[in-house]
Order: sequence, then C-alpha cells, then structure tokens
Amino acid sequence: MAEEQDPEGRAAARPLLTDLYQATMALGYWRAGRAQDQAEFELFFRQCPFGGAFALAAGLRDCVRFLRAFRLRDADLQFLASALPPDTDPAFFEHLRALDCSGVTVRALPEGSLAFPGVPLLQVSGPLLVVQLLETPLLCLVSYASLIATNAARLRLIAGPDKRLLEMGLRRAQGPDGGLTASTYSYLGGFDASSNVLAGQLRGVPVAGTLAHSFVTSFSGSEVPPDPMLAPAAGQGSQVDLAASVETWLERVCGHLGLGVQEPHRGERAAFVAYALAFPRAFQGLLDTYSVRRSGLPNFLAVALALQELGYQAVGVRLDSGDLLQQAREIRGVFRTAAAQFGVPWLQSVPIAVSNNIDEEELARLAQKGSEVNVIGIGTSVVTCPRQPSLGCVYKVGRSKVQLAQHPQGCLPAPGSVPSPRPLTLFLLAEEPPPQAGRELRVWPRGARESRTVRPAHVEPLLRLWVQQGQLCEPLPSLAESRAFAQQSLHRLSPAHRRLEQPALYQVALSEKLQALVDRLSARGAL
Amino acid sequence: MAEEQDPEGRAAARPLLTDLYQATMALGYWRAGRAQDQAEFELFFRQCPFGGAFALAAGLRDCVRFLRAFRLRDADLQFLASALPPDTDPAFFEHLRALDCSGVTVRALPEGSLAFPGVPLLQVSGPLLVVQLLETPLLCLVSYASLIATNAARLRLIAGPDKRLLEMGLRRAQGPDGGLTASTYSYLGGFDASSNVLAGQLRGVPVAGTLAHSFVTSFSGSEVPPDPMLAPAAGQGSQVDLAASVETWLERVCGHLGLGVQEPHRGERAAFVAYALAFPRAFQGLLDTYSVRRSGLPNFLAVALALQELGYQAVGVRLDSGDLLQQAREIRGVFRTAAAQFGVPWLQSVPIAVSNNIDEEELARLAQKGSEVNVIGIGTSVVTCPRQPSLGCVYKVGRSKVQLAQHPQGCLPAPGSVPSPRPLTLFLLAEEPPPQAGRELRVWPRGARESRTVRPAHVEPLLRLWVQQGQLCEPLPSLAESRAFAQQSLHRLSPAHRRLEQPALYQVALSEKLQALVDRLSARGAL
Repeated sequence: MAEEQDPEGRAAARPLLTDLYQATMALGYWRAGRAQDQAEFELFFRQCPFGGAFALAAGLRDCVRFLRAFRLRDADLQFLASALPPDTDPAFFEHLRALDCSGVTVRALPEGSLAFPGVPLLQVSGPLLVVQLLETPLLCLVSYASLIATNAARLRLIAGPDKRLLEMGLRRAQGPDGGLTASTYSYLGGFDASSNVLAGQLRGVPVAGTLAHSFVTSFSGSEVPPDPMLAPAAGQGSQVDLAASVETWLERVCGHLGLGVQEPHRGERAAFVAYALAFPRAFQGLLDTYSVRRSGLPNFLAVALALQELGYQAVGVRLDSGDLLQQAREIRGVFRTAAAQFGVPWLQSVPIAVSNNIDEEELARLAQKGSEVNVIGIGTSVVTCPRQPSLGCVYKVGRSKVQLAQHPQGCLPAPGSVPSPRPLTLFLLAEEPPPQAGRELRVWPRGARESRTVRPAHVEPLLRLWVQQGQLCEPLPSLAESRAFAQQSLHRLSPAHRRLEQPALYQVALSEKLQALVDRLSARGAL
Repeated sequence: MAEEQDPEGRAAARPLLTDLYQATMALGYWRAGRAQDQAEFELFFRQCPFGGAFALAAGLRDCVRFLRAFRLRDADLQFLASALPPDTDPAFFEHLRALDCSGVTVRALPEGSLAFPGVPLLQVSGPLLVVQLLETPLLCLVSYASLIATNAARLRLIAGPDKRLLEMGLRRAQGPDGGLTASTYSYLGGFDASSNVLAGQLRGVPVAGTLAHSFVTSFSGSEVPPDPMLAPAAGQGSQVDLAASVETWLERVCGHLGLGVQEPHRGERAAFVAYALAFPRAFQGLLDTYSVRRSGLPNFLAVALALQELGYQAVGVRLDSGDLLQQAREIRGVFRTAAAQFGVPWLQSVPIAVSNNIDEEELARLAQKGSEVNVIGIGTSVVTCPRQPSLGCVYKVGRSKVQLAQHPQGCLPAPGSVPSPRPLTLFLLAEEPPPQAGRELRVWPRGARESRTVRPAHVEPLLRLWVQQGQLCEPLPSLAESRAFAQQSLHRLSPAHRRLEQPALYQVALSEKLQALVDRLSARGAL
C-alpha cells in the first residue's frame, strides 16, 4: 500500500516512530552479519488491565497499515545517519533504504477477541533486523488500542445493551492521535458513536454532537435572525416565523409549568431558535446553562412544540451538570405531563442525554433500573483510562530455538465436563495437532501442580494468519464487524469472568507435550 | 504556512480533529447571521495538576502551526456534508471552504511560563464561527502538552540539576502522537533527551539509546562475526581481532573479580562484542540480562578494556531490574577497584544508567545524596501521567460585553514589601495601565475579603501577542530556548510554591478597579 493511497497519509505511525535503540541494535545485527537471521517475536501483556479478568485485543488494523507502508525515506535515513556514529558504514544505510516488510509474517488475535495474560496478541516473524525495528511502533499501536477497547467494553458492560454511549474525550486525550485512537477503539469496544469528526472521516466511526454552553451564552436575546422563517417538514404550506411561534408557545408552556413568561432566559431561547432553524429535523436542547427547571426546560418545550406544529420532532435534551439521574427523572415527568397537556405523545419519550465527568461508578448509577437517562457521554474516563493509563505490553523473542512456539488454541469445554464448563485457552507446541471437539484431553492449568482432563465442546485456533511474507492473506474485518465480534466475545465470557471487580481468573493451560518440554527445559536450567 | 512546507505534513492536528458539535454550532451561528461576530475565548485550567502549585504552559508551537495551516479541504467538506442534515444550505459549505485563520489573534503565555489556575494560557479572538471551531483542537494541543511539561518539571525538580533524565515512554504512550507530544514536551519540561527518533527528526529533541535485552538474548555465543577486526581509535596501527582480545581480557577480569571464566554468559559477551564492533566509540553494556555480578559486569569490563587498548572509551552501563540504587553502588565499587587494578582511571567514572518503572518516589530514592546513578530513564510515569492523566483545561467565552477582558500582569513584589516578597499574578482591566515597579498599589487577593498593598520590584506582562490577524508577530522560540526558559521560570518560583507535596498556593489577585467592577456586577446579579 503506497503512502499516497493511504487516506491517513503519514498521520499515524512512521518508521522513525521508534526508540533509537532499535536503530542502534539494527546496526549491531547488521555488523554481526545477522540482519537476515529469522526471528519470531511475541507481543503480549502480563496482567489484565483495571483489575479485570480479560482484555479486548485491538490495534491490528493500525499495525497492518503500518507494516504495509513501512519504508525509510531519504529524510529518515539522513536523520538516522546524524544520530548514529559518523563513521558508520554507508552500506548499512543502503540496507535500510531497501528495507520493507515483504519478509514479515504476522499471526494475531482478530480485533475484538478476548485476550488474556501471556497469550500473544501478535506473533511477528521475519528477518531479525526488521522485526526488531518494529518493536516500538507495534507496542505503541497495540497497547493503547487494546487498553481503550477494554475500557470501553467495561463501560458497555456496566451500561447494559440499551443505553447509547457516546465517546467525547478528544479534548482530554493525550495528544491528537491519542484522541483518534481513543475514538476508534472505544467504538470497537462497544460505544455507539464519538464526537470526534476525524474518527468519522478516517475510520468510519459514527459521529454525534449538537451544541455547547458557549453557543447558548453567546446569544443575549437581542439578536435579530436574518431569516426566522421555517417551512413545514412536509414541504407543503407556507413558512412560519419560528421565533414568533416560539414566543406564543412559551406562554402556554409557562402556564402549564406555573412559571412567569419572563423567567426563561431570552438569550437561551434565541440560541435554541437559532439552532432549530439550522437543524429543524435534529433539534436538541442543552438545558443547564441557566436553570433547567425555570429556563432550559420551558425554552426547550416552547421550541419543540413550535417545531411540532410544522411537523418536526425534537431529537433530545442534554444535561451537563448536577445530579444527572435525579434531573432526568424530573425532566421525564415534565415531558409526560406536557405530552398529555399538549397532545403530543412522542414528547414523553424524548431521549435524555447526560454528561459530566462520568466514571464507572457514576455510570452504574445512571444505568440503574428505572433510570430515565437514554444517552450517556463519557470523556476523560474513557480516553485517558485514569485507573490504569497504560497496558504495559511487551514484545519478546519467541523461543524458536527450542521449538516453544506457542500457538494458543481456544478450547471451550463441553457443558458438564469436569470440573466446570468454563472456557480455557490452551497452549500447544507448534507441531501438535489441535484438540478435537468431543475428545477428552489432559491439560496442565498454568501454575497448577496437577493436570486435569477436559472434553472440549468446541475448539478454535485463536491466532490467525493475517500477513504472510508481507502479503495480506485475507481482508481485515471492518471496524463495525470487529465491534460486533467484540460484543459476541464478551457475551460468551462467563459472568464470573466478565465481572469487573474481583472476577474469576480465566484459565490458561499447557498441553501435556508442552508441559513435558517445559519440565525438561527447567530441569536443565534452560528456563 | 502551506501544509506542503510543513515537515510534519498532516501528522498532527487537522481541522476535522474536532467535536462534531463545533461544526453543528458553526452552522447555527452561520444560519443566525453571526458567523463574523467578534468573539474572544480564553483557555485555562481550574486546578494545578498532581497536587502541585504550578503548571508549565506548553503546546503553543503546535497551536500556531495548526492555526496557520487551518483550511478545510474538499474531502473535509464532503465528510461534513455527510454528517450534517442533507438539506443544509450549500452556501454554508462555501463559507467553510473560504475559512482560514486570517482573522484570528492569539495572545498566550510563552511556552515554559509558569501557569496558575484561572490565568489564560491562550486568549483567542476572531470571528465567532472560526474561534468556536478551534476549541477542541486547541484544548487537545495545549492540555496534554502542558500536563507533560509539568510532569517532567516535577521529575526534574526531584532529580536535581545533575542527573541526566531520559524519556523512553513511546511504547507506553496513548497513541503514536501521544508519544511524539510526550517526547517533545518532556524535553521542554526539563528532560535531557528522548528515545523517540521521530521527536528528534521532527522536533529536534536530542535522542539517545543503545541496546535492549532482546539484542543480548538473540546471541548464543556460537555466532561467527563476519569481521571481528577493529582498527585503533587514532586510525594508526594494525587492526585487532576484538573477540579474541576480549577473551584474553576476560581471564584477567575474572581473576580480579574472583570468578571462573566459564561463569560470564558467552552469548551476552558475543552481543557486547557485536555492539562494540558497531559502536566502538559509544559502547554501553546492558548488565542485567543474566547476572549483573557474575556475567554482565565481567563481560562489560572485558569488552571495555579490550576497546581501551585500542584507544576507545566505553560510555556507560545500564541496569533495568532489581534494586537500582544498591546495584549502582556495588558496580561503582567494582569500577573503582578495576580502574586501579588495570590502570584505567576513566573506568571509575563510567556513567551508570538505570530504568524500570521509575516514578516520583523511586526517582527521589535514586537521586539521593551519595547515589552512584548518573542517568535515569523514565517511561510510563512521564508519558502517561498516571497520577492525573488529563489537565482538564476549558475554553470559555471571554466576557467582552462587560469589558472584563482580564489581561494578567505578572507582578513581583519588592523584597521586604508587606506582607511577604512572594510573587503574585495580577488581573487588570484591559484598559488599565500596568502597575509600575517601585510604586505601591492596592490589590484584592482572589477569595480574600480585604485588600492589601504591594510594591512590586518588577512587573512583566504575562500574555504576549503571538498571532495578529493570522500573522505571526515574532518568531516562536526554539524548543531548546523554551526549555531553558522553563528552567528559569521554575528557578524563580519560591521553594514554598515549588514544593511538590502540599505546596503554598501561588497568589492571584485582582486590581482595585477590576474588583470594583466585579462587585458592581455581582450586586446586579450579573456574575
């Protein structure tokens, strides 16, 4: 994939987005005649993030994009020459100039797979020099993507399937691309949409957003809209002065709510009218700039009812401060009475969106039974992962010399099998045949002193071959497909493993042959 | 600045790196005829990060680069059209197509300035529609940069001026550009160098790095280097077989250390020899792959002494595990005896570099009096700011309607003035003349019920005009200049404010006229 054909250009990772020691080691390998030695590295984490029992694998699409575009340009080589000793053999730079990933093979967990400690998210093999150079960018691309996807999955599990979750953390992200990565992979992990327009443009993430307090406060109410006229939704009939119609409705709404017509803020109403003129089919009111009950709510109702007369239906309200759960309940109550009073049934189910520093705990409160909240916007606590801001993946040389290439096989025990039908991940030797469904086998749970038997109901290899000798073997799933796969993966996880606090640990086991090899190597002091 | 002339291309922020609601509000303003209304926004934070009493302002260079390149391309407009209602007036998109920042003026704290709660880091004025669109990208560019610079400054204060601090967190960063931003602004905040090659290429950050455990473990010792010969440093004299010379030196070193010559790991030694052949003038040994005392240290000494015979001087050793302080002490002891034993004085002062999950607490331990550690590499805890992963800046409409444009003036009271010679930041009305050095004035400390007098020894305006109507007014300082300015700023901060835990709060005050205006507005219920 030429850079020019990549819509992201060089926006994300480039070959020099790496640690200098990868380049110095490259020179070391090259000088030792080992640049073309075959090597295999495995990328994995040692502990699940956030105290949970699972992670979601993510970032593969960025890795594949990076690998396929991997070329050192003249400017890159010039910079490397300036950072390496002046007497470095020019033939080394010629080697680098010719370098690409055409010798690199990648096996990986599909994006959205469950991942567990020690299970490789990526196995990267190829010439030693190039797979070493890839270490830092691959770690950078996989770790944060997987962390965000996992964080988003936890939030989705807390929210339940019905709440609409909106990621809106770009302004809090750790750098521009931190924002783009966060928006992409929080969608993969289970969010519904993002506020980040670039994530929509470049990654196809659904985008959402309406208006902020600054829009509301920028109107004093003395502005004269150049054109306050609005045509009916159906296109038939004459235009109406929306601002004037809203004033008429305001009197009726205030009467219903027992408020004086002077109480609702004029500037806020002017802002709502301006927004409604621009978005008659997608009007949302931000209710809490002044007072929700005395201003935001009556102004919203007046505009929504004026639009309704023209055949338009408001799409929602938003709250960004205070006790969100309690206010949502009160607002829903007002919507119900107003729907009855004005004969507008859809008004009772206008979606209520909330935001304001929502973390796992507050989300659980907002998602409780009986909550009237429909849409939840989360910023800082999804994008920066404050409970654990890095996943801490490592990239280690595979032990190819001792044939310890561990190809994990997912292995789901049959219901009723001993001791429990919980799924496990099984590591086999590369040359071993995979277990067969229905056939009993003996495995060694990691860390246990005794083996046990399992009779898998279903066996699937976890790692798939995505890139062979630089060629993509099959198209990567779309982001939306990976998102659906992530939800399936989570659904198959038992409640004990899915639990977010003090979960049961997911079982990882070695095959008998692999355990025997490990024992022999340990006895020889080789492990 | 055309994008094509920008060496970073579109690598960092682009106009669509924004929240969708900025675009929907833009349409709202445009529809209301207010696109060209003049507006002023201020970007500031409300609380200092990490429990400290200061922050360092940073990110201005990224903001200026972003503003000057700000243009919506056809693809951007097409995407926006797809995200906005299908019946949106095409004239709106023509307005956007013509949009740039030629009407935008930016005042800001110079990068590396001290920043305090409520003091604007940026004041952005210009047409309402465009300054609203800038909100999210400016927040994204300033918040994380300032957070990282502040975090790095704290780590520098803990380390003291003499330790060399190396940022090496790219693999732990929140996305590729999170890594680039972290490397750039940790340097600004006081680090000496970064492992991130791209930060060197694009930002001029000094880069550093040598070798990792994977390099060491990739050698078994049975490899035959294609060319083990090394010429003397001076260029005169015949080449020497370095590998053979190292074996000779190993016997002497093991004799000195009381070790058997079979104890040091062959593969590790082969790796050191390979590295030394590639970097004879910059040989560093990574000591802890196998055993520091029985393998890493004797192998390092053998290679360093073989190089020394040819006139080369090793540049250091590195440790990445265990009790770093204690091991550094032991290693320094061995260096001292070996320096005497082999008559090589420089050996006793070979720099010792350490790394491994170093946080503020461990850094304080490593920087204590008598520590033999010279170079400290920090990754996760500098780049992800785990204590507080976001600064939480806001971007608020300036209250231009009530002439409350607050132009802060730095104001350093004269020594001996009442009640203390601590510096303070003073907010004045835009039309007020600045205070004069030596002239007493009455100020209202924020939150206090009484005024006090100060007689400033020195007064300086804090915000500077950087961009006027889209034109850069003066060249931005280089990154190294901003780094030096940051160190000056920190040096001028009193120890009570500089303290990292439970510091004295920096004083912010209002001028008498501004306080009177605030009181009048409060009385009218307008604040």
